[in-house]
Amino acid sequence: MAEPDVKNGPEDVAEKLSKLTMGDSKVEADDDDFVDPWSVASKSATGIDYNKLIKKFGSSKIDDELVTRIEKITGKPAHHLLKRGVFFSHREMHGILNKVEQGKPFFLYTGRGPSSNSMHLGHLIPFVFTKWLQETFDVPLVIQMTDDEKFLWKDLKLDVAQKMAIDNVKDIIACGFDKEKTFIFKDTEYIGQSPAFYQNMLRVQKCVTFNQVRGIFGFGDSSNIGKIAFPSIQASPSFSSSFPQIFEGKKDIPCLIPCAIDQDPYFRMTRDVAPRLKYPKPALIHSTFFPALQGAQTKMSASDPLSSIFLTDTPNQIKNKINKYAFSGGGATLEEHQKNGGNCDVDIPYQYLTFFLEDDERLAQIKEDYSSGKMMTGEIKKTLIEVLQPIVKKHQERRKMITDDEIKEFMRPRKLKYDYSTKK
Amino acid sequence: MAEPDVKNGPEDVAEKLSKLTMGDSKVEADDDDFVDPWSVASKSATGIDYNKLIKKFGSSKIDDELVTRIEKITGKPAHHLLKRGVFFSHREMHGILNKVEQGKPFFLYTGRGPSSNSMHLGHLIPFVFTKWLQETFDVPLVIQMTDDEKFLWKDLKLDVAQKMAIDNVKDIIACGFDKEKTFIFKDTEYIGQSPAFYQNMLRVQKCVTFNQVRGIFGFGDSSNIGKIAFPSIQASPSFSSSFPQIFEGKKDIPCLIPCAIDQDPYFRMTRDVAPRLKYPKPALIHSTFFPALQGAQTKMSASDPLSSIFLTDTPNQIKNKINKYAFSGGGATLEEHQKNGGNCDVDIPYQYLTFFLEDDERLAQIKEDYSSGKMMTGEIKKTLIEVLQPIVKKHQERRKMITDDEIKEFMRPRKLKYDYSTKK
Repeated sequence: MAEPDVKNGPEDVAEKLSKLTMGDSKVEADDDDFVDPWSVASKSATGIDYNKLIKKFGSSKIDDELVTRIEKITGKPAHHLLKRGVFFSHREMHGILNKVEQGKPFFLYTGRGPSSNSMHLGHLIPFVFTKWLQETFDVPLVIQMTDDEKFLWKDLKLDVAQKMAIDNVKDIIACGFDKEKTFIFKDTEYIGQSPAFYQNMLRVQKCVTFNQVRGIFGFGDSSNIGKIAFPSIQASPSFSSSFPQIFEGKKDIPCLIPCAIDQDPYFRMTRDVAPRLKYPKPALIHSTFFPALQGAQTKMSASDPLSSIFLTDTPNQIKNKINKYAFSGGGATLEEHQKNGGNCDVDIPYQYLTFFLEDDERLAQIKEDYSSGKMMTGEIKKTLIEVLQPIVKKHQERRKMITDDEIKEFMRPRKLKYDYSTKK
Repeated sequence: MAEPDVKNGPEDVAEKLSKLTMGDSKVEADDDDFVDPWSVASKSATGIDYNKLIKKFGSSKIDDELVTRIEKITGKPAHHLLKRGVFFSHREMHGILNKVEQGKPFFLYTGRGPSSNSMHLGHLIPFVFTKWLQETFDVPLVIQMTDDEKFLWKDLKLDVAQKMAIDNVKDIIACGFDKEKTFIFKDTEYIGQSPAFYQNMLRVQKCVTFNQVRGIFGFGDSSNIGKIAFPSIQASPSFSSSFPQIFEGKKDIPCLIPCAIDQDPYFRMTRDVAPRLKYPKPALIHSTFFPALQGAQTKMSASDPLSSIFLTDTPNQIKNKINKYAFSGGGATLEEHQKNGGNCDVDIPYQYLTFFLEDDERLAQIKEDYSSGKMMTGEIKKTLIEVLQPIVKKHQERRKMITDDEIKEFMRPRKLKYDYSTKK
């Protein structure tokens, strides 16, 4: 899937703002924020207004009731990314929970558009949460690497996109997915290995006109024809029939897609099309965006090494980047900070801690101390450094252990360990 | 490939007339004829003006010099479809002959869009000629069945299109292709079996914009996105790298495409794109259209059983159709016919004989006798019936003998019998 990156928008953002519209939901032009699969822009220091986005996109807010229901059904505490509102929006999550209660199967689908050899911290978020979903619900997972998308959108050769995909697959495997229950595929290989997948692409393509993809994705007359057809490729893994080797030919196993909210347009389109193909609509669970080091209204770019912390950064690089570049919500002077306290809503070290510090009590304490001015900017940065350094180090250690054979096995079209026959 | 069928044009023909334009060649609006992959329309009783079409499309006329050169290089007499101008136009045929003289390899590519369970006589023409090319030049051949195209364009389900493709494959095999040198594939299967093919589709897609396919094919805002991307699928078999199993990974083996002239827009686009992919441009050899029984300016439709002779027709059906429906260029009365003679330019029995009566001398005699009024309409119809009945009968006998295993073998991605290493 595409990562948010303003520069890579296929068309002019202003032009898009005036014409975004899709199927059952209408996306209106807005003075503040702009979100689509290639562009995320906000004028506010606190970043995107996610409540507004829920209204615009026509999704549902994840409320306490839903979180409680998930905890009740799974018998496990909710993940901190769910409790803290990083995953904040959904479509038909209750439908998936109904299936679980009825003992019926579902599967997870997420993905990544490989855009650089190295992923940054923000790229981990959907995978960290997806891993939790997989463990908690004990379900199969498919992960799509859209190397074809990157080839079509960027000025790079196909083999470079493919190489990037494999580099990213290593980072994804390092998140700890269960090999027996996870199929990772890159489009440029799997589409050429699966007539069923290609046939679903065709079925989706037949239901979607140029008018529609122009409205949803802002494609124009000068867009290449690969881009225009691409939404069908991101839609197809939502349907269990695209993976006959996993789902034993079953066409009706519903899908839950954890992803950043910018990918929602693809799946609004998919949900529009699904009933016409007599397939279940995919359910979704959406995350907010991971902010750039420089603040929520700036863009985080994989091509700007100073805008984010990479999974390849050394402990020292992490320390220096946070100390030098992490946007602070603290007071301008010691005096001012002690008097007014820090602003957690814009403070990047605090924001990052909400993503990566699992200890709820400690996070609450930090918030209190920082907001009151008791904790200094240097201290909160130090805390973040101490949290991130071991996370990145462990990731690097796990990544280093991944063999070519392991990658091959994850990417081999095969049956996954999940017995559909025992399900009702 | 699409067969000419006015009804299946994706957009309004008049609208297309005003905007057809493509790459290096310009297709201007014309008062008389209209030709594109879905529409062939002529107001003249003699049908399309092919000399005008050559100018419009920017191809080259097949002249005596080219025919003589083919005979000289192959040491064999030219096929009657070539001598008689049924194959009348080409692109870079001399380039292919240069390769042959240099002892360098090339391959043949043709195809069919399966549109009904049964093919008619006209559908045989490109295959009859392709078989002769394969035998004469001793080269490998790939045949694309665009069942995906038919699914995207027509109101039918994917499995119906796939079934039609297999039915048509039987008729194609019955033409007598060499199993060891021929690979027949349907898109909905082969694309899902060949990462190399899909990757070439992507490469073509990246080079072609919506603007371009709108200009070439008349696609519009309400065209589905599968149609818009489809030209990349018909382009890809032009490149040897789409068939690594046949060409041992070689990317530079040139391709010769025998096809009806209405398919040329696909390959003008392909030739435009090829240099950017560093692939050789495909060469082409174009045929005229096979006229409908009712005359050259009417359309022949696979869905109208009376407009053509089907490969499933009985001897009696053939006889009755020709006697009842074949448009006659003879005089209105016996007296008038004896006085003015018949007009071979519009007479369908004579036209059909030029396609199917191999004996040059006999054909010339018939032309003389009919034009002079010595031969009656009933006689020329009888001659045609006597020529076609055994052709169709033999075809049916050969078709009946084709086993499922044989079809499987023709359609199995595999190495073909052709040794590239011995070629210079």
